[in-house]
Amino acid sequence: MEFCQRKITSRSKYPPPNSHRCFRIRGHSGRCNEYWFLKHLKSVEPRVAKKIIRDSRMTTGAPWNSADAGPNRIRRWVMLLPDQDLLPLGIDMASLRPGVRQKLREKAATYEQCISVAQKLTYSVYCMKGAPTATVEIESYLAALFGSIRQGSTKCLICRDTLDFSLFSEARRGKAAIETAHGNPRNHEPDNVGFAHRDCNIAQGPKTLDEFYDWIAGILSRVERTS
Amino acid sequence: MEFCQRKITSRSKYPPPNSHRCFRIRGHSGRCNEYWFLKHLKSVEPRVAKKIIRDSRMTTGAPWNSADAGPNRIRRWVMLLPDQDLLPLGIDMASLRPGVRQKLREKAATYEQCISVAQKLTYSVYCMKGAPTATVEIESYLAALFGSIRQGSTKCLICRDTLDFSLFSEARRGKAAIETAHGNPRNHEPDNVGFAHRDCNIAQGPKTLDEFYDWIAGILSRVERTS
Repeated sequence: MEFCQRKITSRSKYPPPNSHRCFRIRGHSGRCNEYWFLKHLKSVEPRVAKKIIRDSRMTTGAPWNSADAGPNRIRRWVMLLPDQDLLPLGIDMASLRPGVRQKLREKAATYEQCISVAQKLTYSVYCMKGAPTATVEIESYLAALFGSIRQGSTKCLICRDTLDFSLFSEARRGKAAIETAHGNPRNHEPDNVGFAHRDCNIAQGPKTLDEFYDWIAGILSRVERTS
Repeated sequence: MEFCQRKITSRSKYPPPNSHRCFRIRGHSGRCNEYWFLKHLKSVEPRVAKKIIRDSRMTTGAPWNSADAGPNRIRRWVMLLPDQDLLPLGIDMASLRPGVRQKLREKAATYEQCISVAQKLTYSVYCMKGAPTATVEIESYLAALFGSIRQGSTKCLICRDTLDFSLFSEARRGKAAIETAHGNPRNHEPDNVGFAHRDCNIAQGPKTLDEFYDWIAGILSRVERTS
């Protein structure tokens, strides 16, 4: 699919290394729109649409201790800039512990990757059991990118159990029951990103999915040996 | 083994429902001492000894959001008191969310249980690979309670891999690599308590160990089916 790609004026306080662009289909009628594929979800499930935008383009730190965890919610493509270009944006990398610096850098992604991830997450939402039905235009847009939409086909990226749309409105201790997860936590690309149960995402931690499966297989083999 | 059990004056600001007592062997010479079995560890590895006392007798909440998580680090036996007796101690149970109240109550344990857990954890430390060697008196005290001390026999309660004493001094983001874990998180008794890797403890979450093993076995079976 060819996107329109016309520049869109950004209201961000960060000067983006890439200009914001229109991701409607090239030759579209009407106004340019960066997140056009989220238009329907924004109107029927605004919290889910906001979550997709946030998770696809922002870094996440550890909100419980920002002094230790470093700055939170930076646009991922900003983290591609060299240290000296981050200083005027209020991010003093030299003042952060090496582990925090590394974590921030691992979350870096290009603007295009972030948009692709947002498209993929939007598709995953419509493929959830109990999800709202996309408009015909958005369905065909997403189907052209990822294949036809089948409700009930979205599974937790980690435990591979069916993910129900209703989990978006469940929360425990103020934390949503669904999180955005990465097969390899250091790779923000559509093939590597999906939704997961919060418990599964916590259990996976900084491991890749392969490392996680190897780890739990090891646990089970030791438990069987010793029980 | 019979303990001395003589009362010891407490410096706690909480009036304990049970008086503090001496847990040396009945008929001991010298002064009474509640945590006599930790005397050697206190002198050679004070941080580990403090951790044992803290984990064995204090509730833990969620330090990152105490308004939401409720009061942190209450003596476990205090949580056996009815709500009205907690109010003068500054704990207003009625003001807490039901989930937080339940969590606090689940961490309740008698004073005797807490001491038994501390004894068990002390034993587990001396059974770790690379642990300091206990004094003869403490070794025979712990061996009488839990069996002879074999260095290298302490395994992670959750993943059953060998736990090395050196992990006590490893920390990531200011969190120790070893935590105190519960086979059933709602049961603070020596048979149910042990040390675990922090990652394992996080992955187990509020599940019992049996639930955790069933859960990860389910994950592996689904992953095999779909890969």
